[in-house]
Amino acid sequence: MGVKDLHRLGACEAARMIREGAVTSVEVVQACLTRVREVDGQVQAWTFLDPEYALAQARAADEYRMSGQTIGALHGVPVGLKDIIDTADMPTENGSVLHAGRTPSRDASVVSLLRAAGAIIMGKTVTTEFATRTPGKTRNPHNSGHTPGGSSSGSAAAVAAAMVPLALGSQTTGSTIRPASYCGVFGLKPTHGLIPRHGMFQLSRALDHVGLFARSVEDIALLLEELAAYDERDPDSRPRARVPYRAVAAEAPPLTPMFAFVKTSLWERVDADAREAFEELVGHLGDRVEEIELVTPLEEVLEWQRAVGGAEIAINLRREWEKGRDKLSAALRARIEQGREVRALDYLGALGRVPELNASLTELFEQRYDAILTPAAFGTAPKGLESTGDPAFCAVWTLCGMPALNVPLMQGANGLPLGVQLVGARHRDARLLRTARWLVTHLANDASQRGGMAQV
Amino acid sequence: MGVKDLHRLGACEAARMIREGAVTSVEVVQACLTRVREVDGQVQAWTFLDPEYALAQARAADEYRMSGQTIGALHGVPVGLKDIIDTADMPTENGSVLHAGRTPSRDASVVSLLRAAGAIIMGKTVTTEFATRTPGKTRNPHNSGHTPGGSSSGSAAAVAAAMVPLALGSQTTGSTIRPASYCGVFGLKPTHGLIPRHGMFQLSRALDHVGLFARSVEDIALLLEELAAYDERDPDSRPRARVPYRAVAAEAPPLTPMFAFVKTSLWERVDADAREAFEELVGHLGDRVEEIELVTPLEEVLEWQRAVGGAEIAINLRREWEKGRDKLSAALRARIEQGREVRALDYLGALGRVPELNASLTELFEQRYDAILTPAAFGTAPKGLESTGDPAFCAVWTLCGMPALNVPLMQGANGLPLGVQLVGARHRDARLLRTARWLVTHLANDASQRGGMAQV
Repeated sequence: MGVKDLHRLGACEAARMIREGAVTSVEVVQACLTRVREVDGQVQAWTFLDPEYALAQARAADEYRMSGQTIGALHGVPVGLKDIIDTADMPTENGSVLHAGRTPSRDASVVSLLRAAGAIIMGKTVTTEFATRTPGKTRNPHNSGHTPGGSSSGSAAAVAAAMVPLALGSQTTGSTIRPASYCGVFGLKPTHGLIPRHGMFQLSRALDHVGLFARSVEDIALLLEELAAYDERDPDSRPRARVPYRAVAAEAPPLTPMFAFVKTSLWERVDADAREAFEELVGHLGDRVEEIELVTPLEEVLEWQRAVGGAEIAINLRREWEKGRDKLSAALRARIEQGREVRALDYLGALGRVPELNASLTELFEQRYDAILTPAAFGTAPKGLESTGDPAFCAVWTLCGMPALNVPLMQGANGLPLGVQLVGARHRDARLLRTARWLVTHLANDASQRGGMAQV
Repeated sequence: MGVKDLHRLGACEAARMIREGAVTSVEVVQACLTRVREVDGQVQAWTFLDPEYALAQARAADEYRMSGQTIGALHGVPVGLKDIIDTADMPTENGSVLHAGRTPSRDASVVSLLRAAGAIIMGKTVTTEFATRTPGKTRNPHNSGHTPGGSSSGSAAAVAAAMVPLALGSQTTGSTIRPASYCGVFGLKPTHGLIPRHGMFQLSRALDHVGLFARSVEDIALLLEELAAYDERDPDSRPRARVPYRAVAAEAPPLTPMFAFVKTSLWERVDADAREAFEELVGHLGDRVEEIELVTPLEEVLEWQRAVGGAEIAINLRREWEKGRDKLSAALRARIEQGREVRALDYLGALGRVPELNASLTELFEQRYDAILTPAAFGTAPKGLESTGDPAFCAVWTLCGMPALNVPLMQGANGLPLGVQLVGARHRDARLLRTARWLVTHLANDASQRGGMAQV
């Protein structure tokens, strides 16, 4: 790989080469900045990017390494941050004119963790309005007439377009899985509470998750390993034993994995080409996959998700609604107005159903399956930039706080990426990554043996 | 003390004597049962009490001790349990005909902890309807024409009437502090989450606390030391380092304690004789006490408390309301109906204000004071059995999850007990007990030196 292709390096590879002195952080960051100059006019993934400041961080990282001191696992590697993640040295505007020019005084927990691991904070990526549905400026890097998905639009697009090897986003319904699927990258929403959310814009305590974007399972595992941490400032964070995510993800599974294929009532609305691709994938997995149904009707779960999300969005955006509702999009205003009318009875009732649903899902994993396999979205990225697409396929796993991963395995009839969503048991994030790696490797091997499988 | 007075033994003393073989558990339990026979026709503190079963437990405890095995801190000591605390071997009817005959299959966490410490589960004490405001049959042991307070009516009365040295209750607004004040015993509502609530009837996750009743600070400390525990089945329980409550409570404070006297806007509604008694107490403490005001108007806090409690009561009693509302008292029905209409926005808004209020209160303790001193109630136990009295003086500390202790220091003009409420910083329960012990000792010493202080 020549210096001009360094922007295509994965995070593990880049970190290794920087550690070994094969390349410098400045060279990697420089290559990424060049890539940004080349493609971001089209993609528009960034809302804040100061090339000089990124290079200054890279120079400092190189000097630090040269001094012989111990360096972190992400030393010198550039990372993009969704613009709802507070940074003390860059603006954080939450995708709304109401927060224009806002510069926080402190780093979010994840930013502190990234800096401690030696990462270069490349810049801030475009988010939809307050991480909800009203789109930002970003376009799909595979076809600029299509949405990149949302709400982590810029993070997914920046990683897909190789402007940066890693990026952070968030997910409150489907804001990581969906853009990862539309843009053709790996996107992980880890177990709820596993990565602390302190210092990120809060939309919903019950539903908000940090989201990770990368171009390989290994890179996702590396990033997760650096960010899974206890932070008492996140009320849902708990002290836990350290898990070696990278090592586990790299292992071969002790038994060939079993998948539970979950279609739900949404299946009929999935695009025909996507349905076909999934049937082919399932056929290909043979007796490694079984179709199952959720014990709770999906419509009911979606209703709980609406009650919880609606009420929490209304409370978390109450100041913006009270003082500046004319500067909110009509769609968000309507959503808040609806959320303001949710009864506590329905909100608490919905939250109260989650443990039971979770217990029934946990049982699936304990009894038989390594992962649930389900679409990430209704098809490839929809045409147009007015909508970021429908997150319904992500709602159950978000409400249940289960780890979910988009695996960019397929393509639609239009040539755009089409993701497979794998879902694991709560706090079995490492096993989910190991299973995903098996799936990717298995299909690649099969494809090469059989002379190529069109959609893999 | 003769065998016939063994029911008057405190828990520490009884446990010590049993451990040393000076008395047997059978003798202590027998004495308590005799006391029940003598006074409970009048007081009616118990809703379930099987003398033979209590004695069988005591015999087993004595045999166990005789075998030479290590025994727990409460070995052989009888404890009464509010009838909202599940017991696998006795009915638990939650004070409602809707749950008549209900016998749980498992012990509540606190019952397991008590049994592990060697306690004898004496029986179940009367609660108001679902631990809310509609009275049970219990009367004030000092004057049966007066209420014992609620909702832990039977537990407070049973300890006050020396039918048992220890009892457990609960507090969601003022259900431990108020009956302890009316009945003239120590009543502790520890820090929220410190004692696990799994297996107790849930009225409100945010507000429910386990309550402890005893006749001395030492006995409260002993009971707290056995019950403070982590239990993952209580979502507000957290692992914590073990605190030696008994040892700390028994220490002399390193500095003479300072008290913050909090009157609030409720003060004007306090009975004249109680106001006078408090002014005298405060005068007596001299420069050890300063009057302070809460930063948040009390009316506002009471409104938050109503929103949180109302919404949570509505969700936790939804099945009873849906299926048997004609068997609920009119008062509870009205309260549920009100709670059902609380908006999630107001519920979450109220909950969201608590951390800030807590921070301002924590500051008081860090800067200057050892405890807040405030009335436990508006006066002595009101006449009549139709109402259990007004819990408003307890609402702030319950909402904030701060430890609160009723200290039975005074009497009203009618000769009935009048409690002083001491409130401590969250998780400073041990320091609160130490401060309370200082106050009790200090006033007793002064009284003996000055030839007696009428109300102490």
